[in-house]
Amino acid sequence: MGSFVLHGNIIDSESPERLRVAADSYLVCEEGRCTGVFSALPERFSGLPLTDFGDRLILPGMTDLHLHAPQFAFRGLGMDLELLDWLNARTFPEEAKYADLSYAALAYGQFVDCLRRSATTRAVVFGTVHPAATTLLMELLEASGLVSYVGKVNMDRDCPEALREADAAASLAATEQWLASARFAHTKPILTPRFVPSCSDALLQGLGELAARRGLPVQSHLSENLGEIALVQSLCPQTDFYAEAYDRCGLLSQPCIMAHCVHCPPEEQDLLQARGVFIAHSPLSNSNLSSGIAPVSAYLARGLRVGLGSDLAAGETENLFRVMAEAIRVSKLRWRLLDDTTAPLTVAQAFYLATRGGGAFFGEVGCFEPGFALDAVVLDDSALVHPQELTPIERLERCIYLADERHIAAKYVAGTRLF
Amino acid sequence: MGSFVLHGNIIDSESPERLRVAADSYLVCEEGRCTGVFSALPERFSGLPLTDFGDRLILPGMTDLHLHAPQFAFRGLGMDLELLDWLNARTFPEEAKYADLSYAALAYGQFVDCLRRSATTRAVVFGTVHPAATTLLMELLEASGLVSYVGKVNMDRDCPEALREADAAASLAATEQWLASARFAHTKPILTPRFVPSCSDALLQGLGELAARRGLPVQSHLSENLGEIALVQSLCPQTDFYAEAYDRCGLLSQPCIMAHCVHCPPEEQDLLQARGVFIAHSPLSNSNLSSGIAPVSAYLARGLRVGLGSDLAAGETENLFRVMAEAIRVSKLRWRLLDDTTAPLTVAQAFYLATRGGGAFFGEVGCFEPGFALDAVVLDDSALVHPQELTPIERLERCIYLADERHIAAKYVAGTRLF
Repeated sequence: MGSFVLHGNIIDSESPERLRVAADSYLVCEEGRCTGVFSALPERFSGLPLTDFGDRLILPGMTDLHLHAPQFAFRGLGMDLELLDWLNARTFPEEAKYADLSYAALAYGQFVDCLRRSATTRAVVFGTVHPAATTLLMELLEASGLVSYVGKVNMDRDCPEALREADAAASLAATEQWLASARFAHTKPILTPRFVPSCSDALLQGLGELAARRGLPVQSHLSENLGEIALVQSLCPQTDFYAEAYDRCGLLSQPCIMAHCVHCPPEEQDLLQARGVFIAHSPLSNSNLSSGIAPVSAYLARGLRVGLGSDLAAGETENLFRVMAEAIRVSKLRWRLLDDTTAPLTVAQAFYLATRGGGAFFGEVGCFEPGFALDAVVLDDSALVHPQELTPIERLERCIYLADERHIAAKYVAGTRLF
Repeated sequence: MGSFVLHGNIIDSESPERLRVAADSYLVCEEGRCTGVFSALPERFSGLPLTDFGDRLILPGMTDLHLHAPQFAFRGLGMDLELLDWLNARTFPEEAKYADLSYAALAYGQFVDCLRRSATTRAVVFGTVHPAATTLLMELLEASGLVSYVGKVNMDRDCPEALREADAAASLAATEQWLASARFAHTKPILTPRFVPSCSDALLQGLGELAARRGLPVQSHLSENLGEIALVQSLCPQTDFYAEAYDRCGLLSQPCIMAHCVHCPPEEQDLLQARGVFIAHSPLSNSNLSSGIAPVSAYLARGLRVGLGSDLAAGETENLFRVMAEAIRVSKLRWRLLDDTTAPLTVAQAFYLATRGGGAFFGEVGCFEPGFALDAVVLDDSALVHPQELTPIERLERCIYLADERHIAAKYVAGTRLF
């Protein structure tokens, strides 16, 4: 966690609507936090080590608000199913394998190596129900230099026996056991009821109490798929909408991420806004599982907190550039096919979601304003050949559509250079 | 154009619904054409040189039925517009640059190099209105080893003066001039009226006569975007639907590709079927330009001829793996949002579109049945790490979602190895 200066073409988000470009400029980091961006380096920073990235683009590191580490193993497979069938046919059998720590070490090692090489600097991650495998995942993430929240999954009903915790008490005890071992500097625990169908009322209640008692954040899934929503309605007939099943247990009252939010009625949106819940928009996943298209620009317009999720492996890639491009693309289809009163996402908005939008879950993260954590990715887009002159903004737009880990020349997390 | 044997895991399409897998098998090529696929190599082929690709996947080469070579320069840029505005703001100014042959040489060199490294073995390509630049593009494609059709674009109305040909006679004369120079072994000319809004009635009529007289194939755009369709209706009030404006000039009577076909009414589909027209489905483009989603599985079900188009640069990539994945993805959104009577595309169908579906425009191309041209791509997917065993079919599915040019270990076109 150092103090240094980076030189290059520096771009971040001023707001969801506005990109901020400092071409040929200097980004000053002191003790892991941004001091500022300067077109000429002030004399007082002349003693800091300077890395000159020349004409390259320097962007804030990106935050992935929703992904499943154990599903990385089957990314790109078994996509011809909807959510509930996909869980039973593909996901649960794979997740059951993580009872075996040697399998978990192999698979999680591959996952963490891939995430480390991506544009993602911070991530909020689902593990499995297994405490030991989840702690192992946290050890690997801690060693990677990334910053993350990781959750041991809770599920005590409506899933295969190999994954089902015996009852709420057993699930809560396993969670306490895991929490006792989950002590790392940059890899923090997050409570993770899988979703309402997998969790008894008693388990949700117990997790809400645990979250309040220990001040722990919470992540889960919400209003992803029509079949899931109908199931939740039948399981919780006394609720008016899905999010109430979490809220009545206090699970929305801590820092909280709800993945998807594709089909939220207005009252549900009101509740998410009142509780300050973060929405993890996962467009690749929502198309792959035929779930639908979340009205993200409408969420932004009403002031909801939104970031992006790769949702590995219902989304096939950890590459948040691809997720940004897909967020823009599906928002256009939504506008064309469903609702022409909700404008498509712009490039600036998609970039905001991947940086400041999701970064805010980690505090002052996601841009280069003074005091923000110095998370950065340096892009070398020279392999994306072109015959004409391009501005830094045009180069950023191209990278959103075309970049992957090959184009990342350097990566910094909280002031530490990973590569 | 040789005779040889390849060994590996061989996959092609038996039909739109069925993949055919020959694991650990031998593909025999004689004089550039497939002889057959064998689980053990028959004695009579033991004298042919054998290349052992071990555990790699051997797939048919892929056909890109629709892309614009001059637009490669701005791939991934300027996507926040719909078709007609995008043409005026981004496309026409870029295409005007190809009056300069030195710019064309630089830009087309970059394009052809990229296409050569992709999974595409055959392509049907738009150039610009410029005869000399289009012939230069053909020279570069011929040297690349790819097989293609290339069209000098015709447009004599409703576009910037720098691109507008003076009138129908001038456009036809420039086309004849280009045809006289466009003599290559593997790079053939195709007549290319841009689309109805850019072409006077006299020009369409003249091109129809030229196509019939010279036996030339035709490519254009059809029913892509609602704004475009309304414009064509106003320009051709005597037609019942868009395709009639081409058909009344005989332009659908030669081998013909119509790109997009997003919004074809049933009578238009009937006409395309009666004329044997190929539809170039371009899902990335149709989302990027907010055009909509073509009902491709319905087209397949009624027996229409369909292949895939990258539609560079309304589609941002030449990578047909990405186009396949996007075709599947948008078909799911169409099913969810618009019409749940039209099933989403399967992996098998998307693979068929990229191989046999589009390949048929070139004759016996797109699979490994006896007599078919030996176009093949060999995939090394070992960098797509995974902890579990996978079948060849699962590996193909993963590659559809995740592969790019990095994973292509070898490429053959009509029996010649390109790399």
